[in-house]
Amino acid sequence: MPEESRILDIEGLELAIKNRDAQAFLPATEELHYADLASVFENLDDDERAFFTKTISLERFPEILAELPDTLIEETLERFGPDSQRSILSQLLDDDRADILQDVSSEARQRYLAMLKPDEQETTRSLMRYDEDTAGGRMTTNAARIKLGTSVKDTLDLLRDYKDSAESLARVYVVDDEGRLKGKIRLRELAFSDRDSPVEDIMQEIDISILATADQEEAAQIFAKYDMTLLPVVDEYDRLLGVITHDDVIEIMEEESTEDIEKMSGIAGEQSEETYLNTSVVTHFKRRFPWLLVLALLAISSGYVMLRFEHILSSIYLLALYLPMVVAAGGNTGGQAAAMVIRAMSLGELEAGSTSSVIIKELLLGLLLGCVLGGCIALVTLFILPAFNPPLPETVTLATFTLAVSLALAAQITTSTLSGALLPLGARAIKLDPAVVAAPAITTLVDISGMVIYFTAAQGILGV
Amino acid sequence: MPEESRILDIEGLELAIKNRDAQAFLPATEELHYADLASVFENLDDDERAFFTKTISLERFPEILAELPDTLIEETLERFGPDSQRSILSQLLDDDRADILQDVSSEARQRYLAMLKPDEQETTRSLMRYDEDTAGGRMTTNAARIKLGTSVKDTLDLLRDYKDSAESLARVYVVDDEGRLKGKIRLRELAFSDRDSPVEDIMQEIDISILATADQEEAAQIFAKYDMTLLPVVDEYDRLLGVITHDDVIEIMEEESTEDIEKMSGIAGEQSEETYLNTSVVTHFKRRFPWLLVLALLAISSGYVMLRFEHILSSIYLLALYLPMVVAAGGNTGGQAAAMVIRAMSLGELEAGSTSSVIIKELLLGLLLGCVLGGCIALVTLFILPAFNPPLPETVTLATFTLAVSLALAAQITTSTLSGALLPLGARAIKLDPAVVAAPAITTLVDISGMVIYFTAAQGILGV
Repeated sequence: MPEESRILDIEGLELAIKNRDAQAFLPATEELHYADLASVFENLDDDERAFFTKTISLERFPEILAELPDTLIEETLERFGPDSQRSILSQLLDDDRADILQDVSSEARQRYLAMLKPDEQETTRSLMRYDEDTAGGRMTTNAARIKLGTSVKDTLDLLRDYKDSAESLARVYVVDDEGRLKGKIRLRELAFSDRDSPVEDIMQEIDISILATADQEEAAQIFAKYDMTLLPVVDEYDRLLGVITHDDVIEIMEEESTEDIEKMSGIAGEQSEETYLNTSVVTHFKRRFPWLLVLALLAISSGYVMLRFEHILSSIYLLALYLPMVVAAGGNTGGQAAAMVIRAMSLGELEAGSTSSVIIKELLLGLLLGCVLGGCIALVTLFILPAFNPPLPETVTLATFTLAVSLALAAQITTSTLSGALLPLGARAIKLDPAVVAAPAITTLVDISGMVIYFTAAQGILGV
Repeated sequence: MPEESRILDIEGLELAIKNRDAQAFLPATEELHYADLASVFENLDDDERAFFTKTISLERFPEILAELPDTLIEETLERFGPDSQRSILSQLLDDDRADILQDVSSEARQRYLAMLKPDEQETTRSLMRYDEDTAGGRMTTNAARIKLGTSVKDTLDLLRDYKDSAESLARVYVVDDEGRLKGKIRLRELAFSDRDSPVEDIMQEIDISILATADQEEAAQIFAKYDMTLLPVVDEYDRLLGVITHDDVIEIMEEESTEDIEKMSGIAGEQSEETYLNTSVVTHFKRRFPWLLVLALLAISSGYVMLRFEHILSSIYLLALYLPMVVAAGGNTGGQAAAMVIRAMSLGELEAGSTSSVIIKELLLGLLLGCVLGGCIALVTLFILPAFNPPLPETVTLATFTLAVSLALAAQITTSTLSGALLPLGARAIKLDPAVVAAPAITTLVDISGMVIYFTAAQGILGV
């Protein structure tokens, strides 16, 4: 089984590194996939990394470097001398090279750029103009492109030279004299067509392309919706700049989902490029602490509401039995609604115009959830609570007590469901990332309103 | 701009449907992408759908059908007569056909299967053997495959016939007489190689394949890690069954991320195939209610703890000011830890052996977060609270009160962080989906422990 032999190879490599055995190390690095080599490298200690970079072949290293987390890039490159650095940098794919140069210090960036050939410098600089999170920042310029009027035979001859450099030949793009995108051809059409006909005869219309300045998430949404193989990236004059490939899209989707999940859980800051286990405790701390602090200070408001309503709780202390439940139910349903709406936005399902549909849907849902859950809790209370001989003051009957609790629960769930859906929509309306209104923030806010609703209902219905 | 012209085309199509204008409808459906046509269809009312299915060409409809949500498949197919059904079903790609037949009633499935040609029936049945969420359930059998010993010229001739049927020709797989996978060739290698040499000369080793019974998530992880174009799927004898393509992987990743986010927010049941807006309120209700009910019943335990410690709260009512904060801080940090660990597991970063590293990391983090936040709250309390002339009994000084609150907060955060990380790991250890220990469940559990910790600390330190 290939899986098992890969694990054996990885263990062999790790042993070779531990023994500083260059004779065993080199063939092992030739056998293994660069993604595995990068994982192994990431888990080495400093001495072992020094052996790795000293021994590895310069042809093999560039693709390993491209897989390393951002934080390791510069220190790893600095383990090589200037000649090796030049060789590694110029072997990188142009989009990987631009990404790597965006991740190093500005001193190193200038130094590395100066090592490159003029045309490499130009491509790299032009790619670095686009933010890392845009379609332009993600694209590779290695698209196979030919001019209108070229014959099938000449196209095939031209592509022969692309053999090693075009990241994908699945589509060949046809451009006019100004470089504007005019059509596309599948490689297989070329292989099976009459060699003398011009490419216009077999080219297909381009129905989907993306602006270089568009958000990477939009590129991923288009890719997913239209089952694309390559997505051409154009400038505002429709000139072909490059293509986004499916492995870029898979990376974008992993990043965006991780980001959503982290933000929704109240984890701040940029997603770590390193794995969970390789990220230091201090980095984890820095990302978790800010929201914890903000939410703790906010939660004191809930406590303040409890203080203010002391007289109610002290006259009917049985209210304490349901207080945490009413408060928490709001947080839970608000969190559910927020998750649903944030995910629907990430998948591109909610246009700006659909806010009113969301409001109607969540209002209905909130009422339904609130009434059904309120009803369940009322039944539980009416049938089970009497068995415990609950300490109620004489002025309050079990029926009115149950009514107060269930009504408060229904009101809390209805308002919380609506808030959970509206806060992310509101965040987007003021151009904030919807996921940034983290679910814990929503929970804390509806906790406060839950306290107020609960005590107000008790006050109004039970007359204390 | 292509984007704008597409929107105009979609609006034109919608108008044509509203006017029941077949003359405008047909060219519009030829222009648009099938994903757009499926979105339009999904949003039509019953009469409009009848017009759509009556008017659309039978060549265009199969790819639209494959994009529709599961719940619409059968009623839509039933709008056609048996001859049209046969034509639509046999035009579908084999993996789409198998998916569609898995989504209809068993009566319809038998009827549709009986319409197919014997070889179509056989492929479809063999694909349906694998669960929808496995590599086998996701693969297409339309892989380009040739036998060892075939020449480059014969291979190209064979591929010409695949032209329309192989979902991707990016890789041609080489198999032996028993169908066992022996190597792969890129289409471009074929196009640029000597036509008389046998494929063995240019084929590359297969280093990565996946068993048909493996989970679809594993397929996506391999695809993402190794930047693959096609992932070959094999049986236990290493015989090539099919391939997973990058658009399958993009779909898997969307599904798995949505599933994780939904489960982590306490949303139950299978992810809806329909968009958020097209999913009915009743379906939303059914998925949100179960956890809400379970958590509400659980939360009554928190209330019970409050009842039990009535004497403490009534002798130092100021404790109510910090009670919600201590409880909520545990929920927040537990949720953060759970999200981090669940995501790391989804990305394949945490092997079974890394449990102890996770425990050490989260214990350190819990202590760090607890001590720092406890310290912050202690400072706030010591410097700000006196200004409000807080109602403390004479036996309790501000200093001991602050100590009790901060220590409880630190203890609550430390234990909650650890629980948040351990519960998903525990779930996996007993073969449950880690995300199923939803964050709200963790929050509710640590709410209960938070109440106990808080009142116990108050009792022990303040001696009430």
